[in-house]
Amino acid sequence: MKDFLDKDFLLSTETAKKLYHEHAEHMPIIDYHCHLQPKEIYEDKKFRNLTEVWLGAGDRYGDHYKWRALRARGYEEDSISGPWDDRKKFDQFVESMPYFVGNPLYHWSHLEMQRYFDIHDVITPKNADKIWNEANKKLETLTARQMMYKFNVDTVCTTDDPVDDLHYHKLMAEDKTLKVHVRPAFRPDKALNCELSWYRDWIHQLEKVVGFEFKEVSDLTKALAMRIDYFHEMGSRLADHALDVVHYKKASYDEVNAVFKKAMKGEEISFEEQDVYKGYILVFLGKEYNEHGWVQQYHIGALRNNSQKMLKEIGPDTGFDAIEDQVYMSKLSQLLDAQDATDELPKTILYCLNPRDNYALTVLAGCFQKAGMRSRVQVGTAWWFLDQLDGMRQNLECVMQVALISQEVGMLTDSRSFLAYPRHEYYRRLLCEMLGNLVESGQYPKSELETLGQIVEDVCYNNAKKFFGF
Amino acid sequence: MKDFLDKDFLLSTETAKKLYHEHAEHMPIIDYHCHLQPKEIYEDKKFRNLTEVWLGAGDRYGDHYKWRALRARGYEEDSISGPWDDRKKFDQFVESMPYFVGNPLYHWSHLEMQRYFDIHDVITPKNADKIWNEANKKLETLTARQMMYKFNVDTVCTTDDPVDDLHYHKLMAEDKTLKVHVRPAFRPDKALNCELSWYRDWIHQLEKVVGFEFKEVSDLTKALAMRIDYFHEMGSRLADHALDVVHYKKASYDEVNAVFKKAMKGEEISFEEQDVYKGYILVFLGKEYNEHGWVQQYHIGALRNNSQKMLKEIGPDTGFDAIEDQVYMSKLSQLLDAQDATDELPKTILYCLNPRDNYALTVLAGCFQKAGMRSRVQVGTAWWFLDQLDGMRQNLECVMQVALISQEVGMLTDSRSFLAYPRHEYYRRLLCEMLGNLVESGQYPKSELETLGQIVEDVCYNNAKKFFGF
Amino acid sequence: MKDFLDKDFLLSTETAKKLYHEHAEHMPIIDYHCHLQPKEIYEDKKFRNLTEVWLGAGDRYGDHYKWRALRARGYEEDSISGPWDDRKKFDQFVESMPYFVGNPLYHWSHLEMQRYFDIHDVITPKNADKIWNEANKKLETLTARQMMYKFNVDTVCTTDDPVDDLHYHKLMAEDKTLKVHVRPAFRPDKALNCELSWYRDWIHQLEKVVGFEFKEVSDLTKALAMRIDYFHEMGSRLADHALDVVHYKKASYDEVNAVFKKAMKGEEISFEEQDVYKGYILVFLGKEYNEHGWVQQYHIGALRNNSQKMLKEIGPDTGFDAIEDQVYMSKLSQLLDAQDATDELPKTILYCLNPRDNYALTVLAGCFQKAGMRSRVQVGTAWWFLDQLDGMRQNLECVMQVALISQEVGMLTDSRSFLAYPRHEYYRRLLCEMLGNLVESGQYPKSELETLGQIVEDVCYNNAKKFFGF
Repeated sequence: MKDFLDKDFLLSTETAKKLYHEHAEHMPIIDYHCHLQPKEIYEDKKFRNLTEVWLGAGDRYGDHYKWRALRARGYEEDSISGPWDDRKKFDQFVESMPYFVGNPLYHWSHLEMQRYFDIHDVITPKNADKIWNEANKKLETLTARQMMYKFNVDTVCTTDDPVDDLHYHKLMAEDKTLKVHVRPAFRPDKALNCELSWYRDWIHQLEKVVGFEFKEVSDLTKALAMRIDYFHEMGSRLADHALDVVHYKKASYDEVNAVFKKAMKGEEISFEEQDVYKGYILVFLGKEYNEHGWVQQYHIGALRNNSQKMLKEIGPDTGFDAIEDQVYMSKLSQLLDAQDATDELPKTILYCLNPRDNYALTVLAGCFQKAGMRSRVQVGTAWWFLDQLDGMRQNLECVMQVALISQEVGMLTDSRSFLAYPRHEYYRRLLCEMLGNLVESGQYPKSELETLGQIVEDVCYNNAKKFFGF
Repeated sequence: MKDFLDKDFLLSTETAKKLYHEHAEHMPIIDYHCHLQPKEIYEDKKFRNLTEVWLGAGDRYGDHYKWRALRARGYEEDSISGPWDDRKKFDQFVESMPYFVGNPLYHWSHLEMQRYFDIHDVITPKNADKIWNEANKKLETLTARQMMYKFNVDTVCTTDDPVDDLHYHKLMAEDKTLKVHVRPAFRPDKALNCELSWYRDWIHQLEKVVGFEFKEVSDLTKALAMRIDYFHEMGSRLADHALDVVHYKKASYDEVNAVFKKAMKGEEISFEEQDVYKGYILVFLGKEYNEHGWVQQYHIGALRNNSQKMLKEIGPDTGFDAIEDQVYMSKLSQLLDAQDATDELPKTILYCLNPRDNYALTVLAGCFQKAGMRSRVQVGTAWWFLDQLDGMRQNLECVMQVALISQEVGMLTDSRSFLAYPRHEYYRRLLCEMLGNLVESGQYPKSELETLGQIVEDVCYNNAKKFFGF
Repeated sequence: MKDFLDKDFLLSTETAKKLYHEHAEHMPIIDYHCHLQPKEIYEDKKFRNLTEVWLGAGDRYGDHYKWRALRARGYEEDSISGPWDDRKKFDQFVESMPYFVGNPLYHWSHLEMQRYFDIHDVITPKNADKIWNEANKKLETLTARQMMYKFNVDTVCTTDDPVDDLHYHKLMAEDKTLKVHVRPAFRPDKALNCELSWYRDWIHQLEKVVGFEFKEVSDLTKALAMRIDYFHEMGSRLADHALDVVHYKKASYDEVNAVFKKAMKGEEISFEEQDVYKGYILVFLGKEYNEHGWVQQYHIGALRNNSQKMLKEIGPDTGFDAIEDQVYMSKLSQLLDAQDATDELPKTILYCLNPRDNYALTVLAGCFQKAGMRSRVQVGTAWWFLDQLDGMRQNLECVMQVALISQEVGMLTDSRSFLAYPRHEYYRRLLCEMLGNLVESGQYPKSELETLGQIVEDVCYNNAKKFFGF
């Protein structure tokens, strides 16, 4: 029996241990997609106590993985995302911990205690006082930036709206004391979602930012191109899209423009009209990204805001999203092909939220490679609900079988929390375990172990550095 | 090499053995969804021989898992579901047994011999005489009730039509000798399936039962509410729905009523009209269940009666059903949300017949939790074709990763047979093996083993008892 | 730690080793579906060097698995499928080899070196010269036929167009020196795909072959029946269909005929019209196959020609295909049922390209069994992108759980290459490992090991021989 969460956690063979401890463990982190607040990094946020940094601030903003688990436990919403006393919230979470058996929260939470706070106790009510006191003591000096330094974070990419002036990114660029590279990432979902009520308002915001009125869709694309230029100047090298449903239909400019005008009048936009409009904007943006040498990321398949009641009560992105099951391969193929046809498809990462689509998506990516690049189009690591051992294992297994694991850009946190970096460790351990098993079972020669160590380092860090051009 | 099907069957570690033998093994069984005939329990059915109880009665009613396997073997239908001699049927099944390698039938059949008949021989032609004679001898006293007692069955829920008068349930309630709680479950599929030829006849049956004519759809819902009251009085605490395809569309009462009237005229009902009608009835029923504190079960995704020829020859539910692959998450989300919006969503179990949807369904369930309840909406255990080691493993793994295994209501048989209880054992062994592996591999601390033992007991029995309010 | 790719590759237990070495290893091969060129077999093709036979001929014709991997490596197309120097191509491939860790190419390539060339070195740049020289030396005598003999290939079925005169098959039938049975297989995709630009041309070709003009669709079906007769005479016993999307809709003859006429005018054919036309032709052909005692194979779910640019540059079937994600179970059920209704459904193998559909497809197959046949309808082995350890494991696991592995017809190469036979070995090793695990873990009695050995031999060879009637 292995000890609980010891230094060889998830590593069952000598080869796995060697790959992890000699190659993976000490590589810096490039967290190329996350939701950290630039302001909090710039101001080097200090947390009032463990509850704030671990569970959330009490202002409906926090760790929705933990919130979902606490809701399943049957606790009141106010004790989860609301105004309850911090210590009471902490105690409730600790009390629940043993019932999270098998859930990634059990591992994440313990890794967070071990790695940030050097607290190695089992999280359980009888240790609650000790953990609360020790962690809070550490938080007196363990600020946001210190947390990043602890994990050897090299680069972080935040997620930013095209209308954002990137104020804090500017300040951070000038801050000589900051030892992490913080880059913005371009996320123009609001320019795409013409069917939503807030579309027009956002368009008007963008008009203000660029200083001219959009008479037709070409004005909008001109404005987006300007913002891409601006983001590029500010250090951005990648864009992110939430494609809850993949839309694409080849259409003429006039057809696209007609949908744009309809949307700007606030009229209802049909599914097919979304195909026309979104397809056009995505292809346009892809080509712009390509010209700038950027990477585009498609996050595919979320089914959002399932509880209308909770959406009204506490807003979006609070733990009421799920996984879509629409079919989309043919449309996605056409969307990528429309960019590739003129040789303007940028480096692209496809993220899959429904594990049932792992194989189809990974194989499709393999149809759009390019000379001079390693895996120009690749699937990203297991995303969101799949960012756990089973999800990552399925993702890695699929990548190994029908793509090249050696060229993957590896892990990211996708998180709003400074406590999320152990997920890189979690991923790296699993990666080493799986690659180690290939050697141990006679599927890869031990004579090539040095190369394999290099591959591990590449997936942990070097591939991302090169792919994103950081 | 482990011995075949010994006391540590499926248990490969010390922790797994401990969890099973000290916690799971002796817990009573709550079989909250099955298809046993109330009459057979009440009358304490005695079986004429092993063939009748093991393979089926020869009246096209029996174990369709075994029948499907025998058909794949290429045997004549009459020798499977038909009038063949019982001993010849038995011999044919025994002869086939070695070729069921890897199939759950191999395990189920041997467990059935071991647990009910204390016969520990390998089922193979050279043991056929011995097995036939010994088992038939035991059947002289091993009646339906004795079979249930042998397995420490605490509660059984049958599956009953709303028009049923629950005659045998009434008799059993008064039968002091019966040591199992037998409760009816409300299954109103026929009230939903307005597109089927027998819809009108059934509606007229219901009119007779409640004593008034249905002039519009509100009369039907009133009648259904009356039957829920009646079922509740008779001990029912749950309802079951076969949602082969998930239908839902928000609609006005008039729109719903129009579909009802069309159906009552025997006109063809379109897919969209089914969305309107079924969505309405399901939301209505959900709210009624909620008011009664019931649990509603949605069995999602069967593709039925694939062979028209066999449907004509031997009728439905005889082994010619399969798995649907339609997309449905968005509609299901809306259906649950429509009940949740007014805070009237009852405790709900979602069963998934297509394992590709495990993750999407389990995550969706997590969006509809409620204060004061443990996992108010949860996915059920692996269902029907998935009720086997691989299917259960996928189901449990998914529940662990994105929900809370500790709060699951556990196993059920869904069976028509009194010989199906070893499936609880099968499930429990796998559960203990998987939880044991977490401890053995350092993913859960051995210091929490007592809690884990408690969790095992909860999943085996306590959770169901509490969730259903038995 | 096991040695790399030694004699017990993939076999981790004593039972697995016994099953493989005593039962699987020496069984002959029936490769009932492949894309070998009859001409190359007849002429006993000699290869100019290792690059030609291993990677492709440089005329855009070769191993698209290897090509896809090389494209992901970022190499120029000309160095992959084009006119580059053979040795440079070889070196580039060898250089890439270590980065294929986890990919089946790593195993296939080494198995190919070991089994055909008796070269047991790790494929890596420092061994490049040795491998190149030794292999090329062997190729002086290692011709196409010798490669087949080396693997004890008993029967091979090529893939042939209905308009083909089967010239080389005729010659081979008369060639007493040929020690492999080579049979044609009937692949009438072009008769089905009425929506494609080359449909009319092909129809006119068929008219020429049969010697009459097709005034209506009954003339076409008459012609197809004649070609089936001809193929049957020439030894064909099976047909193959690429059902990228499954089309079926019950329709009258007049409706079908209308679509046929529309297609012959070159008009655009809608999705629904394809349902009508393709459904009709498939049902017709199925009945013809049944009358001839043939096996029909449905290859379901490819998403082809995803890169329009590469389609123009180097043509179809060069590595730019992917996996479709459409839903189709209901239509497939109807298509099979339409043949079964009149008891004219032939023996059928269903191949699944999207692993998410394994369970649904395998269970559906189980609904169409027939007295006197073993698994009349069965799912085929893991296909194309799934022909690797994870894909085969999922396929075998599913077959075990909801069908009968003991009755499967086993492996095929689906390959254009004479170097593909080690895939049979790969499959057999995995099969023995999985069946061995059942015994080792107490899930199948060791007393039945002899039967299990027989089952292994059946799946490797005997089942196919019997099923296809070879």
